[in-house]
Amino acid sequence: MTLIDLSLKKTCDHFQGFRGKFINSEKSTIIFWEAEAGAIVPEHSHPHEQISEVTEGKFELKVGNKTTILKSGLVIIIPPNTTHSGKALTSCKIKDIFCPVREDYKEFS
Amino acid sequence: MTLIDLSLKKTCDHFQGFRGKFINSEKSTIIFWEAEAGAIVPEHSHPHEQISEVTEGKFELKVGNKTTILKSGLVIIIPPNTTHSGKALTSCKIKDIFCPVREDYKEFS
Repeated sequence: MTLIDLSLKKTCDHFQGFRGKFINSEKSTIIFWEAEAGAIVPEHSHPHEQISEVTEGKFELKVGNKTTILKSGLVIIIPPNTTHSGKALTSCKIKDIFCPVREDYKEFS
Repeated sequence: MTLIDLSLKKTCDHFQGFRGKFINSEKSTIIFWEAEAGAIVPEHSHPHEQISEVTEGKFELKVGNKTTILKSGLVIIIPPNTTHSGKALTSCKIKDIFCPVREDYKEFS
């Protein structure tokens, strides 16, 4: 088993305005993000399923043509290869779970 | 995409003292647990990888022969087919992520 103390884990910059703590297991990648108000995730897609939860703040997420305001208590499942983009309406804490592992993010973990 | 409002999601009993909200996607199962102080998870294992996070309270988790006290800020990765058991030392909120999907839990979602 692997125990991760998030307080000791390095924080990596990624998209401008987003700082994340990246955990890669064998089967998934989990990222604990802190986003600044106004920070933008450009439109993109990836072959990984993504499950996102905003634990603090409000985050506007566009998936395909549908826009949703994520906040605490909401969980969203974005299927693989689905275009999405977003904007932090306030400062936010966001948790993203990707399956399978984001090989392209391994450098951050 | 699928948007889940946890406040509207039914809560299911499972182990005694544990009540959970179950989310099954294509690739993973996420469970938001509320545990009563003293509640026990009997020793068990499963072929799914499990990632657990205690967001409130303290939970004693034994994985193999190693015992850890989980609390906010700690994340643990339990590899597939690894025996584990636990006890809620206080009332707790726990988030479990399983990959692949827990077919045995689909009845709860």
